[in-house]
Amino acid sequence: MILIGQYDSPFVRRVGIALRHCELAFEHRPWSVWADADKIAQYNPLRRVPVLIWDDGSVLVETFPILQALDELVGPARALSPAPGPSRHDASRIAAFASGICDKAVNLLYASLDLMAPSEAWKKRCQTQIQETFARLESDKSKRSSPFFFGDTLLHADIAVACAYRFVQEAQPSLCDASQFPALSALSARAEALPAFREIYLPITNNLNKS
Amino acid sequence: MILIGQYDSPFVRRVGIALRHCELAFEHRPWSVWADADKIAQYNPLRRVPVLIWDDGSVLVETFPILQALDELVGPARALSPAPGPSRHDASRIAAFASGICDKAVNLLYASLDLMAPSEAWKKRCQTQIQETFARLESDKSKRSSPFFFGDTLLHADIAVACAYRFVQEAQPSLCDASQFPALSALSARAEALPAFREIYLPITNNLNKS
Repeated sequence: MILIGQYDSPFVRRVGIALRHCELAFEHRPWSVWADADKIAQYNPLRRVPVLIWDDGSVLVETFPILQALDELVGPARALSPAPGPSRHDASRIAAFASGICDKAVNLLYASLDLMAPSEAWKKRCQTQIQETFARLESDKSKRSSPFFFGDTLLHADIAVACAYRFVQEAQPSLCDASQFPALSALSARAEALPAFREIYLPITNNLNKS
Repeated sequence: MILIGQYDSPFVRRVGIALRHCELAFEHRPWSVWADADKIAQYNPLRRVPVLIWDDGSVLVETFPILQALDELVGPARALSPAPGPSRHDASRIAAFASGICDKAVNLLYASLDLMAPSEAWKKRCQTQIQETFARLESDKSKRSSPFFFGDTLLHADIAVACAYRFVQEAQPSLCDASQFPALSALSARAEALPAFREIYLPITNNLNKS
């Protein structure tokens, strides 16, 4: 398989970590959505990442269906989602909250890169969305005594939250004060210590996005 | 079940149509992401829609996991996705292309509502993303002689493309010239004639989003 996209995107990082954590071999093409837009467009005319090229040549785009396909590939025993039912609902909501935080943080990052000038109302809304969603995740995680959201095992929901947490800490640190989010901070530290998280990482450098 | 969100959102419409097409009973709360943001935040601190409240009270957010949960609920024989494998990859890529078109069209709509002032580079990129992704979908659909992407039966991929097509036709008609996309235009007409599409629809009125 071939994974397209840079690891400074929390979405690409999430897929890369899942692949690495599941010990699925893949090649990595760290193409920029701006500088390498034409190369990405061959596979995805939206010029967005992550893109995952399957061994049979089929192309998957967008984080959620890519991760669903990986779960199907490894089978139920090794999938990083709970079995269908209430726990899966729970896990998918947690992951969707984390993913939404990243969407909003990317919006704010683009604003800071002069790609768009958001109104004050829009900017304030993004900040509220990020902070209140982290607060909801903090409240949820703090009620669970297990190392990860669903016990001792790292699942997609944990990867999503950890990637969102690290991304916002780097991109908009004022919106992610560790002292406000002790349970998420502990989860992040636990996740970032794992081999997959250490290996699959690129700090945000605005120049990459601008080039 | 309770579906939160207005049908002028192509994402909410897509979920509403899937529910109606699968004959799943639901109540509808047409809350605005701006005027009713606080009500939505009780369930989704991101204040985004669609939100689907399950009969057991669990909350699902984001289109893709909601639709996955509906497929699991109705079972493989009635699910609106192909079985796991190459066709499912194909279907999820088509739906993801349509969903990405909607993201970009919503960005441009927000720009026109003065919620953000995109740079010329950003705006041009959005327009290219929409037009080239429609062109890719047109090329794909035109090679299939069946009424829908995967035969005679309407699946999530068809609903996604039809909702994106109608939304862009209303929101940014210059980016969706029917004469350029005859196969998509025919698919749209076929879909919009179905009871679920006729029933689950709200024209875009900018005031709703502004209020």
